[in-house]
Amino acid sequence: MNRSERFEHGMKVLTEVDGEGGQRVVESLADVSPELGHQIVAWAFGDMYARPELPPRDRQLVTLGVLTALGGCELELDVHINAALNVGLTATEISEALLHSAVYAGIPRALNATLVAKRVFAERGVSPLPADEDRLPSA
Amino acid sequence: MNRSERFEHGMKVLTEVDGEGGQRVVESLADVSPELGHQIVAWAFGDMYARPELPPRDRQLVTLGVLTALGGCELELDVHINAALNVGLTATEISEALLHSAVYAGIPRALNATLVAKRVFAERGVSPLPADEDRLPSA
Amino acid sequence: MNRSERFEHGMKVLTEVDGEGGQRVVESLADVSPELGHQIVAWAFGDMYARPELPPRDRQLVTLGVLTALGGCELELDVHINAALNVGLTATEISEALLHSAVYAGIPRALNATLVAKRVFAERGVSPLPADEDRLPSA
Amino acid sequence: MNRSERFEHGMKVLTEVDGEGGQRVVESLADVSPELGHQIVAWAFGDMYARPELPPRDRQLVTLGVLTALGGCELELDVHINAALNVGLTATEISEALLHSAVYAGIPRALNATLVAKRVFAERGVSPLPADEDRLPSA
Amino acid sequence: MNRSERFEHGMKVLTEVDGEGGQRVVESLADVSPELGHQIVAWAFGDMYARPELPPRDRQLVTLGVLTALGGCELELDVHINAALNVGLTATEISEALLHSAVYAGIPRALNATLVAKRVFAERGVSPLPADEDRLPSA
Amino acid sequence: MNRSERFEHGMKVLTEVDGEGGQRVVESLADVSPELGHQIVAWAFGDMYARPELPPRDRQLVTLGVLTALGGCELELDVHINAALNVGLTATEISEALLHSAVYAGIPRALNATLVAKRVFAERGVSPLPADEDRLPSA
Repeated sequence: MNRSERFEHGMKVLTEVDGEGGQRVVESLADVSPELGHQIVAWAFGDMYARPELPPRDRQLVTLGVLTALGGCELELDVHINAALNVGLTATEISEALLHSAVYAGIPRALNATLVAKRVFAERGVSPLPADEDRLPSA
Repeated sequence: MNRSERFEHGMKVLTEVDGEGGQRVVESLADVSPELGHQIVAWAFGDMYARPELPPRDRQLVTLGVLTALGGCELELDVHINAALNVGLTATEISEALLHSAVYAGIPRALNATLVAKRVFAERGVSPLPADEDRLPSA
Repeated sequence: MNRSERFEHGMKVLTEVDGEGGQRVVESLADVSPELGHQIVAWAFGDMYARPELPPRDRQLVTLGVLTALGGCELELDVHINAALNVGLTATEISEALLHSAVYAGIPRALNATLVAKRVFAERGVSPLPADEDRLPSA
Repeated sequence: MNRSERFEHGMKVLTEVDGEGGQRVVESLADVSPELGHQIVAWAFGDMYARPELPPRDRQLVTLGVLTALGGCELELDVHINAALNVGLTATEISEALLHSAVYAGIPRALNATLVAKRVFAERGVSPLPADEDRLPSA
Repeated sequence: MNRSERFEHGMKVLTEVDGEGGQRVVESLADVSPELGHQIVAWAFGDMYARPELPPRDRQLVTLGVLTALGGCELELDVHINAALNVGLTATEISEALLHSAVYAGIPRALNATLVAKRVFAERGVSPLPADEDRLPSA
Repeated sequence: MNRSERFEHGMKVLTEVDGEGGQRVVESLADVSPELGHQIVAWAFGDMYARPELPPRDRQLVTLGVLTALGGCELELDVHINAALNVGLTATEISEALLHSAVYAGIPRALNATLVAKRVFAERGVSPLPADEDRLPSA
């Protein structure tokens, strides 16, 4: 594949996984770092994400762990919590994955990531709670 | 103690330390991760913070160091700078603790934390400066 | 459950997941911080890991992402790469999860984690490579 | 040099490198941590930055690497991307330095820094792209 | 004070706080970065640590929080856990401060710091446990 | 270029920059993650490092900043301090770049990186000190 074909291939993967959120990020780079946009598409999605050794759902669990631990990645968490929903993780599983990360990355990192998930879930109209959950947290 | 009693105990500690700021954080989690809210209350405050081996004032010095070093924890620093004032640290001591962290975590982390303190101090109507301090920084 | 029962419950989960590696960590804390040992067992494993909302295999993918991103957690990666094998991730999937993390945490963090995996795989006598893989990396 | 002279010396260096952005940061500290403001001026710029062993252009390359890797330093990156332009790095070189950091700090850190550069470049009316670059990223 | 006097002043503070451990670090820099050694002594200890706004015991609580959160600072934790003992924190308080940091920095960072404390406590012949503590962690 | 040609191209760049240290890292991955080895060679060096927008000397200044700030990257710093010498940075400039990073990443990160430089400089028989520097740090 030449450079242009690698980009096309990566864009197909990125669009399936991230949807419009990922495309917007790449477009926002056009006037400041088109090469970073190219690498996100052609390398991160085309070369790495597309490898068959791990399915997208598993990749998103790893990605949620990494982004939560890094901190300061609210933009990227927004894209990747949407992606996680796109590739088959439920809101409940995503919420639980972020809760789980509190053990290893500490409460503040988990809290920050969970507040991003709160916004994404509201935008997507999904809830991590069981249908009948209308009780207080500790009840 | 059962789960509900652990939550009640933790909420009492959290309210003493963090005041309304902590409660608002827990409430904001009700529709996205009530279990994270429960763990903040029952575990972080009920089990850990309440231990008598270290008084609240000492705990807040450690917490300020951790949150400053982590970076990207402006929300949590807001809550914990308020908490630091609540448990007896003065604005001067808090400002100095953040200055001290510059040595170990670098100037940018200390600066970011100090700008959160600036907002909290303004909201609380407290000042870290001696009453007669109206001179230029280097004077 | 009382404190002792919470510990017993957590130790059962920890032993299933981490095996001897986790127990050794807890034992090493006996003379310096038995309470940290207790919290690892009773809270991290008993309260958090044991929750049914996410199966152990998914939890280990998140944990590998967090520990790789944090850096400086070679001891914990050793325990949790062993744990990943214990709960059903293959060496190939673990190696791929660490490769995937390079996109988000950078090559050095992924490299450090992969070198821990190399040691663990050798100790366990497992290989992430296809049986017939004896070619050069780029072949 | 006494304390006041060290401040004057540092302020001269800071003003040459950072321009108004750096001064605004120091001024914002006057009511919360004048000593942090003093140390930024007298120590960071007067003692450290002014050393002749490395010219300002080289220092800014190191600084861009550190701030990108730390994450959560958007304020400081704004000041230091301006500073990089002030001491002779071109927008193209800055954009490339941030792209380069993606290899070692991961895509999200490089993306966040690049989006700060996008804002600074727009404010300064400079572009990292060749004059004839009006093609799609992958073309 | 001139450069040499600032160094002398800082070395006095460093020696009081860190003892031989700090001196060894500075000496180890003599052939690779004498200026970093100078700055540790003259700036970090002479200018910053010596400020009266916060006593050494409080500074060490902040420092323990920062170093634990940063990770990968085993050398510095060794020096500063020794320093913490030197300025009046008990082994029990140090162990508790590191336990407390688990809430905010996660279990792995707290564990790594605690294992450094274990070595330092053994070298110093001190124990964080109550004299009659010979029970199992969860008992 | 096909996959094999991209690897060959990258290996040429890596060998020029990193020398044997880089090759050893790639070889060490052959049985655990040959794909990570491939990506280091073909992507990090072939696609990214080889871009003409920034010369190797500038790239190494950025890389030193990133690796120092990340922490826990002693292995990678060893390779990249060697690389820095290979592409024309002097020991004095490298030592100064690490000193400079102390302002932004804190003293401990700068200290850890400088101690790696100490080992590399000794192995390479180079010194960052002026020929007549045999005085005490503060003299």
